[in-house]
Amino acid sequence: MSKIYVAGIGPGAYDQMTGKAIRALNESDVIIGYTVYVDLVKEHFPGKEFMTTPMKKEVDRCVLAFEEARKGKTVSMICSGDAGVYGMAGLMYEVGVNYPDVELEIISGVTAATGGAAVLGAPLIHDFCLISLSDLLTPWEKIEARLLGASQADFVICLYNPSSKKRHDYLKKACDLMMRYKSPETVCGIVYHIGREGEGSRVMTLKELRDTQVDMFTTVFIGNSQTKELNGKMVTPRGYRNV
Amino acid sequence: MSKIYVAGIGPGAYDQMTGKAIRALNESDVIIGYTVYVDLVKEHFPGKEFMTTPMKKEVDRCVLAFEEARKGKTVSMICSGDAGVYGMAGLMYEVGVNYPDVELEIISGVTAATGGAAVLGAPLIHDFCLISLSDLLTPWEKIEARLLGASQADFVICLYNPSSKKRHDYLKKACDLMMRYKSPETVCGIVYHIGREGEGSRVMTLKELRDTQVDMFTTVFIGNSQTKELNGKMVTPRGYRNV
Repeated sequence: MSKIYVAGIGPGAYDQMTGKAIRALNESDVIIGYTVYVDLVKEHFPGKEFMTTPMKKEVDRCVLAFEEARKGKTVSMICSGDAGVYGMAGLMYEVGVNYPDVELEIISGVTAATGGAAVLGAPLIHDFCLISLSDLLTPWEKIEARLLGASQADFVICLYNPSSKKRHDYLKKACDLMMRYKSPETVCGIVYHIGREGEGSRVMTLKELRDTQVDMFTTVFIGNSQTKELNGKMVTPRGYRNV
Repeated sequence: MSKIYVAGIGPGAYDQMTGKAIRALNESDVIIGYTVYVDLVKEHFPGKEFMTTPMKKEVDRCVLAFEEARKGKTVSMICSGDAGVYGMAGLMYEVGVNYPDVELEIISGVTAATGGAAVLGAPLIHDFCLISLSDLLTPWEKIEARLLGASQADFVICLYNPSSKKRHDYLKKACDLMMRYKSPETVCGIVYHIGREGEGSRVMTLKELRDTQVDMFTTVFIGNSQTKELNGKMVTPRGYRNV
């Protein structure tokens, strides 16, 4: 049976890949992915065939993977972070309905929420939500409901896709919504280029975050009511009772 | 300056550790952790000094790490999954306030939510929440508010610590709360012993989950309104519009 690995490569640095993901890529004849991610791993897997499709061509990319597998090749479809967090794993199963003779194996990786958290300190620790601000495939009303629901229930919130050229004011809109329930003084943090060249982070208040311009390579963290700044690090305690 | 790595070792299998975590442990003189996690890695790091403290002695474990570091040793504090997701990273920063001469570096890993998701198929994919059902350090009212808020906003929900000897009916209580907003037919999944011997999973409805007995080695996934079962896998589509 032909096999496709759908593998998360982590935030970007080779040493943040798991051994399992490295093994899958080594076992593969073809490595397929979005151009940027393929460029990140290319040098570490010499002799492999690489295929890329641009952003927004995700279905084509899945079909390409299955067609290559049908030729008898072992294929790795790579995603940044974790393949199952805003990644290709779901679409691969959906497209895979047409390819019952191809086996899928999902290999998890370090997603931006936990990779970025390690840079900021310990912002997640307790209950948290991931919310993508991209309304390309999700109606904005749904995103709004999630921002409000998560804020009201005092979750730590991690925002993916906080901005793009077309959505330059979405983070501001999101902060305004969260401030209906979260204090403007809530401790927040941003991390950019996690695990890649130019990695950096900043800790600030929610009020300050509202007026901060971020790009699509940034992951944003909004604390819960207990989150604090400790020596420049963003830290959420484990519980609500004193330990 | 003395250094402590706070490293997530992933779900348990050595090949799910990142290269960075392996390097940190190799560089360390002492590896400290909860007994079960130390036993998982021991064989792969021969010649290291290992120290353990039992469950519920987390503050002692942190103090131990800092005291060892102060002796000039390089220390790794290990956690299962990711060190920043219900892990020791937060407490290490809190205890670390008393040890300004010791540097902390957090190394992220694959947490049970994404490790378990890979076993079930692609249950997360889109916006999701992690909620721990343990009320040891969090008032139950807070957990309840989060279960309700997350369900109302149609998040995929991943439950950590779904059960214990003292909390054998908590999953049932949680399911009843989630069913106020989620359909009893919502696709759910459980994964046990992720990445370890005896790994297994099951896909079922929320109604069935309510009457399923799970243990503390199980991670539970509750889909959103779009989650479906595809050939025995739990799959959440990427968006709410047709791609």
